[in-house]
Amino acid sequence: MEHGRVGIVGGGQLGRMLTDAALPLGFAVTVIDPVENCPAAQAGAEQIQASLKDPDAIRSLASRTDVVTWEIEDIDVTALEGLPTAVEPSPYTLGTIQDKLRQKRMLVRAGLPVAAFMDLDPNRLDRDVDMAFKAFGAVIIKARTGGYDGRGNMSVRPDNSQGIFDRFGDTQLYVERLVPFQKELAVIVARDVLGNIAQYPVVETIHENNICHLVLAPAGIDPRIRADAEEIAHETAGHLDGAGVFAIEMFLTDGDELLINEIAPRVHNSGHHTIEANATSQFEQHIRAITRLPLGSTEMISPAAMINILGERNGPVALRGLGRVLSLPGTHVHLYGKEPTKMERKMGHIVVISDDVEEARVIALKARRELTI
Amino acid sequence: MEHGRVGIVGGGQLGRMLTDAALPLGFAVTVIDPVENCPAAQAGAEQIQASLKDPDAIRSLASRTDVVTWEIEDIDVTALEGLPTAVEPSPYTLGTIQDKLRQKRMLVRAGLPVAAFMDLDPNRLDRDVDMAFKAFGAVIIKARTGGYDGRGNMSVRPDNSQGIFDRFGDTQLYVERLVPFQKELAVIVARDVLGNIAQYPVVETIHENNICHLVLAPAGIDPRIRADAEEIAHETAGHLDGAGVFAIEMFLTDGDELLINEIAPRVHNSGHHTIEANATSQFEQHIRAITRLPLGSTEMISPAAMINILGERNGPVALRGLGRVLSLPGTHVHLYGKEPTKMERKMGHIVVISDDVEEARVIALKARRELTI
Repeated sequence: MEHGRVGIVGGGQLGRMLTDAALPLGFAVTVIDPVENCPAAQAGAEQIQASLKDPDAIRSLASRTDVVTWEIEDIDVTALEGLPTAVEPSPYTLGTIQDKLRQKRMLVRAGLPVAAFMDLDPNRLDRDVDMAFKAFGAVIIKARTGGYDGRGNMSVRPDNSQGIFDRFGDTQLYVERLVPFQKELAVIVARDVLGNIAQYPVVETIHENNICHLVLAPAGIDPRIRADAEEIAHETAGHLDGAGVFAIEMFLTDGDELLINEIAPRVHNSGHHTIEANATSQFEQHIRAITRLPLGSTEMISPAAMINILGERNGPVALRGLGRVLSLPGTHVHLYGKEPTKMERKMGHIVVISDDVEEARVIALKARRELTI
Repeated sequence: MEHGRVGIVGGGQLGRMLTDAALPLGFAVTVIDPVENCPAAQAGAEQIQASLKDPDAIRSLASRTDVVTWEIEDIDVTALEGLPTAVEPSPYTLGTIQDKLRQKRMLVRAGLPVAAFMDLDPNRLDRDVDMAFKAFGAVIIKARTGGYDGRGNMSVRPDNSQGIFDRFGDTQLYVERLVPFQKELAVIVARDVLGNIAQYPVVETIHENNICHLVLAPAGIDPRIRADAEEIAHETAGHLDGAGVFAIEMFLTDGDELLINEIAPRVHNSGHHTIEANATSQFEQHIRAITRLPLGSTEMISPAAMINILGERNGPVALRGLGRVLSLPGTHVHLYGKEPTKMERKMGHIVVISDDVEEARVIALKARRELTI
């Protein structure tokens, strides 16, 4: 497919950066997004203004594009499955990943390492959770579907589980062993339509309030662990269907064990630095993969730190401090054009390039403090 | 100025890449361009569809933006001078540069090296050219205004000058010594509003039919000559008014002398590789400069070769070979979204990143051969 049109379900910052990658390769882009003049539309994508879950909008997207993909996993798999247009990666993979319990089972079947888990029978929650406490010690209860940025996850103690169940309502749940970890790691991995796989160097992700706050590339870990993490990500991609970029998030446990936490079937916050720091960005890589172009090199050009710019208030955007940020060495600012600013809303990110990742981290934290939005 | 709107006269590939640089810094962009859905508009710029020389369009652009700049020098300086909005770089500088004879005189006054030249009196052309032949030996006659990509330049021999004059018609002319050169070099240089200057490493430009064909970064020249070229560019920028990016094109003569050929008061084809190969691209640098943000580092991240994708036929765009290009190591493709393809039209460019500039050149030439558009 050359010179075609790419359809993306979702036109937020990920859709915007996919658009930035698609246009210079000669593709036009159409996105679905409910927000008028969404971030991707500002960067040149045509926009179908509709809910991401609107099957009519998805059919309309498919009818005017050559391949359909997504920037967010919380969308209607059924609507994607019946389309006459290519859909990448496969809706089946999306369906598996959307249901965290199915995802975990798939990983176990593939022989990949995950924390111990068990299904919770909605009719026997108390008994099941009790069993989990006995088997796993500390546990975390998770919604099977719909959670992201930590939403839908709840740590529980034996004495407070009933309140938790009330908060989840009718959502289907499962329970996982709560594993003490030293670090969270992530590997961005890409698959082309032929099944060729290319993984990026492993990064460390640092979360605050369950939202990705800081990414350090490369991760400061033992080379053996690094190699293992990349190997696990590579193998995981081999068990997924369809072409595109996936993020494999892992825990490095206190016992130096690697466990897959979850898979994102899309470009991911833990790969934003690849625009500046790698030979091919995750966004271009995804566009290449879904349009049947060859994958690009994932080689690291420079160490980098990425820090998210999350809203710290509610109100109209009022940008201050950009000049101070840009006067710091190696800074690259990406604002997403969102309006208004909201608490915890992802408004942009800053990437800092440096020969030393620790120096990049220090500059990134300083840069973030200089900026208000 | 933070969170404002940038106005650009011209929305071709340079306006498009300026737009790509402006949006992530939080700026909106409006361009003037006569072509419906021009390259910059496709990348998210608002477009005023009008002639670049339409003073009403320029006033309208100024009324809706916080700073006005341009991507092409062949525009109406008078219209720019009366605007109530900031204009960068200064219209006075643009006026000087538009008239190549005034430009040359400015450079001579500044003590900067240029080939010998003289004015041609339209009433005594034969006599004046005769005088030039005697003084300079081989000469080249140039139109004072309106020429670019070599248009408006004519080599003449003593026996064919009359035919040349007929072809120029009423255009004002001047004559220059035709200097045999080994290489053409270029230095991109940026000035901020305070007069701080940052120059990029010198590159070699290789022209075909007077159009920039290939850029090699860094130029394969003696370190002393490299330092001199960068010093000359730095000094030249010191004699220009206003903020922004300028390209200083030079000849390295057969006698190892550096002569300034001409100045482009804008981002330039010889700086396209800076998107991938330098810490700050020329496009972001220009946006920073004109919006009163600090200049970024011009440091080279990697050697690179840039090759233009010029149209080789007339007709609708029909892209072929993109996959083969992207399977070559280090290739980055930038298509401009122009329609239709025309002979010699700048349809896109390819940048190749490599540890070795000679290897980058070989891959760039191969990549260009693989692609048809």
